[in-house]
Amino acid sequence: MPTETTAPDRLTLAGREYSSRLLVGTGKYKDMAETARAIEASGAEIVTVAVRRTNLGQTPGEPNILDILPPERYTILPNTAGCYDVETAVRTCRLARELLDGHNLVKLEVLGDEKTLFPDVIATLKAAEELVKDGFQVMVYTNDDPIVARQLEEIGCIAVMPLAAPIGSGLGIRNPLNIRTIVENAHVPILVDAGVGTASDAAVAMELGCDGVLMNTAIAAARDPILMASAMRKGIEAGREAYLAGRMAPKRFASASSPMEGLFFQP
Amino acid sequence: MPTETTAPDRLTLAGREYSSRLLVGTGKYKDMAETARAIEASGAEIVTVAVRRTNLGQTPGEPNILDILPPERYTILPNTAGCYDVETAVRTCRLARELLDGHNLVKLEVLGDEKTLFPDVIATLKAAEELVKDGFQVMVYTNDDPIVARQLEEIGCIAVMPLAAPIGSGLGIRNPLNIRTIVENAHVPILVDAGVGTASDAAVAMELGCDGVLMNTAIAAARDPILMASAMRKGIEAGREAYLAGRMAPKRFASASSPMEGLFFQP
Amino acid sequence: MPTETTAPDRLTLAGREYSSRLLVGTGKYKDMAETARAIEASGAEIVTVAVRRTNLGQTPGEPNILDILPPERYTILPNTAGCYDVETAVRTCRLARELLDGHNLVKLEVLGDEKTLFPDVIATLKAAEELVKDGFQVMVYTNDDPIVARQLEEIGCIAVMPLAAPIGSGLGIRNPLNIRTIVENAHVPILVDAGVGTASDAAVAMELGCDGVLMNTAIAAARDPILMASAMRKGIEAGREAYLAGRMAPKRFASASSPMEGLFFQP
Amino acid sequence: MPTETTAPDRLTLAGREYSSRLLVGTGKYKDMAETARAIEASGAEIVTVAVRRTNLGQTPGEPNILDILPPERYTILPNTAGCYDVETAVRTCRLARELLDGHNLVKLEVLGDEKTLFPDVIATLKAAEELVKDGFQVMVYTNDDPIVARQLEEIGCIAVMPLAAPIGSGLGIRNPLNIRTIVENAHVPILVDAGVGTASDAAVAMELGCDGVLMNTAIAAARDPILMASAMRKGIEAGREAYLAGRMAPKRFASASSPMEGLFFQP
Repeated sequence: MPTETTAPDRLTLAGREYSSRLLVGTGKYKDMAETARAIEASGAEIVTVAVRRTNLGQTPGEPNILDILPPERYTILPNTAGCYDVETAVRTCRLARELLDGHNLVKLEVLGDEKTLFPDVIATLKAAEELVKDGFQVMVYTNDDPIVARQLEEIGCIAVMPLAAPIGSGLGIRNPLNIRTIVENAHVPILVDAGVGTASDAAVAMELGCDGVLMNTAIAAARDPILMASAMRKGIEAGREAYLAGRMAPKRFASASSPMEGLFFQP
Repeated sequence: MPTETTAPDRLTLAGREYSSRLLVGTGKYKDMAETARAIEASGAEIVTVAVRRTNLGQTPGEPNILDILPPERYTILPNTAGCYDVETAVRTCRLARELLDGHNLVKLEVLGDEKTLFPDVIATLKAAEELVKDGFQVMVYTNDDPIVARQLEEIGCIAVMPLAAPIGSGLGIRNPLNIRTIVENAHVPILVDAGVGTASDAAVAMELGCDGVLMNTAIAAARDPILMASAMRKGIEAGREAYLAGRMAPKRFASASSPMEGLFFQP
Repeated sequence: MPTETTAPDRLTLAGREYSSRLLVGTGKYKDMAETARAIEASGAEIVTVAVRRTNLGQTPGEPNILDILPPERYTILPNTAGCYDVETAVRTCRLARELLDGHNLVKLEVLGDEKTLFPDVIATLKAAEELVKDGFQVMVYTNDDPIVARQLEEIGCIAVMPLAAPIGSGLGIRNPLNIRTIVENAHVPILVDAGVGTASDAAVAMELGCDGVLMNTAIAAARDPILMASAMRKGIEAGREAYLAGRMAPKRFASASSPMEGLFFQP
Repeated sequence: MPTETTAPDRLTLAGREYSSRLLVGTGKYKDMAETARAIEASGAEIVTVAVRRTNLGQTPGEPNILDILPPERYTILPNTAGCYDVETAVRTCRLARELLDGHNLVKLEVLGDEKTLFPDVIATLKAAEELVKDGFQVMVYTNDDPIVARQLEEIGCIAVMPLAAPIGSGLGIRNPLNIRTIVENAHVPILVDAGVGTASDAAVAMELGCDGVLMNTAIAAARDPILMASAMRKGIEAGREAYLAGRMAPKRFASASSPMEGLFFQP
């Protein structure tokens, strides 16, 4: 994607390199076939699976999500969706490790309530600490709080995943300045997780300097999920390239002497 | 790009079909070689040329922009950049037609002042009327005024091109609701012209239902214009696909009972 | 309102000074009594009346709006609401002048369509020209187009009144940069007319440097119109004082070295 | 302020009623005289004082801030500005209690770093818990995280004070939806603390349903702090009245059939 002389632009997570910066979930599709086609169209190489809602082998005889996610092609990212306390979240990760033969990479989320699905950052920090000690490589869903993001990094999480907006809302990035501050302070990858609604939202996340975006509803709940998966793939690539290309500075007018700074208000 | 069974998604302008919905200018690049490489990377099939600032053959012996824009590959769109009155704009279009052997397709802009570069919609309407009568196929730059957009269509313009923001500002779409209203009322293609700053801005224009976007500074003034051209190409495609895919409705929370409408304010 | 040593801050229109910068309409109230109480609570000194919808004496025997608007207290501002062409608008102003014994001050609006109620700026310019020649003092409703605003001033309008958003929408100021540009270029008072929804919208208009705000639906369609009228009065005063007081420059963080300009994006 | 028949609208904090919903600080003024005049113009009845930066009697012989803040007129709200850990914050509150003869009301802030001044919500929760156990009435500065806000309420804080934007930034409310969610879930007063820049920002906070706003820099760093204090007073009142009055629902156009909900995007 970049110009010929530059090295390929890769996302590195847990020592592995990925070409795609779009991570997707498997929920809310019509059926397994649609799930598979949407994931294919998204170009994603990392697929997150809600351990408490999806059959990873816990229920023998039922369709297993792994059947459509061959491990040589996809990195499975078990997640703790639906967990509202430290203990359940930790136990869910351990179950996933068992089902996946020692797989250590997990996405932790500990939610604060069933209505808003906002993370409980206190419980999240505790669960992250336990999981890191137990040898997990923890990617962690959190609010867009720059101090909490730094604390999660200090605990040893390998990636921090602030929300754009509430899970399943499709509202896009509510507070770009916070996401930007998190990115500027980080020494681990920052991926926006939750709240993206359309392709331009994904592009904005990447233009802010994020390393990737994880989404599910924005694809699965589109009228045409397969086409939206392709749109998201391109939106992520567009935003990443724009970030690397270094955008022009916004000005009020084309003339050199019209910077926005002169204004007493922000547009 | 769309799902297999659908017809290819094409932009039709003046009876000709285009795969690309990104139109680019030729100004502000370091040199002709960079101009050529940026246009190549953008995937554009329509390239607009400022007749009063660019050599289309008026100055024999000087480098001619047509040398890097083979007519079998690109549609040349002469424009009237730098014109501040009806007469100059009309004369400029006629000069272009002569230089280009009867080529009738032009982009009309009549500016209101040198500082803001906002269009003078009164003069624009008059010039458009004259040019249509004189057999031109007029694509017309205008403000984001829905009534003026309709009047330009009624006069016979083949495409209406409202600004996102002032020319060269890079501020993105200042008034999405106006652009949306223009799109909903139109029977000719609507292309956003001017003011886009980065890839997500281009995606937003397409998600609003525009048929295309024309830009110059956002690519030429990026740190790496070639990479930004690629970003814009993908941003346009991402936004178009997202528009066709039908995005999820934004909600406050994932729960079915949390629409935004319930709010007394707009976020 | 300002500190003791400064001169009182007044709005001057057509040679007359006003303490209040809030102008209100009379439509959409439950009854005349509510209309009167809302106007009283708003502190307005200028009240606009839709000549084609309100009895100013055209229909003898019916309640006359002037009964609740004593001329020694209020400046009546007849308006051309509901006019969609030059001739009707001009005729309506003449009717108002007759009914009001030679009163020359009018608010001109010529609308483009019944759905959006956006102004038709071409027709507005023509009607304004005729009215000015005929001796009217014209305050003129228009789009937020800075070039059209300047042309209306050049024609001789005594005040230019760009919209914040469509009439009756309550969406607030859609394009603050355009309003700001209009204010910076103007030599006559600029008043925002239409689209304000709540008190903070009115304050924003004043903070942008506008000389006043005209509204109707935002007060009349509130749950408690009388209280909202008071809110709007205070919102206008708050915004005006904030404008005169000179707000702090926005920064990313309190530290001196964190201006917004350093950002490659606008929040 | 409300209509005659309603009860007066009061803010109740720690069992005491206040007419004013604007709380102000004492920092960054030119001198004590300007501080006093600005507080007077703001109409504030609660004044917050940074114990670590202001003389409340710790340094005998120096000017004491209490000299300009007579206790019969103002409620003093000692705050822990400049504290970056639990212990310092708790110790600072105890010092204030001593200096103020057993005064229990404090504003707690525990900051996460010196650059952003974002709160450390983990340390804030711990300090709040200690202080509540020790008999303090704790008003607490926090991020705009709805789950943390609820936890601070559950711990026994008497008011929760989410930021609008970073301290001293003047950026206004960055995430109105989060503030709104905090308000909807709360059983104690919610006051916006930090980040307000101008009068309309204060009005917006109140329109979201907040019970009050605390600010310092927005007044002290204005060109004319005294006039800005008056602007803020009116902005707060305007926003509160607009909230109580129940604003009109925003619509795309005045026609009944044009709600915003129909849009696939949020403006």
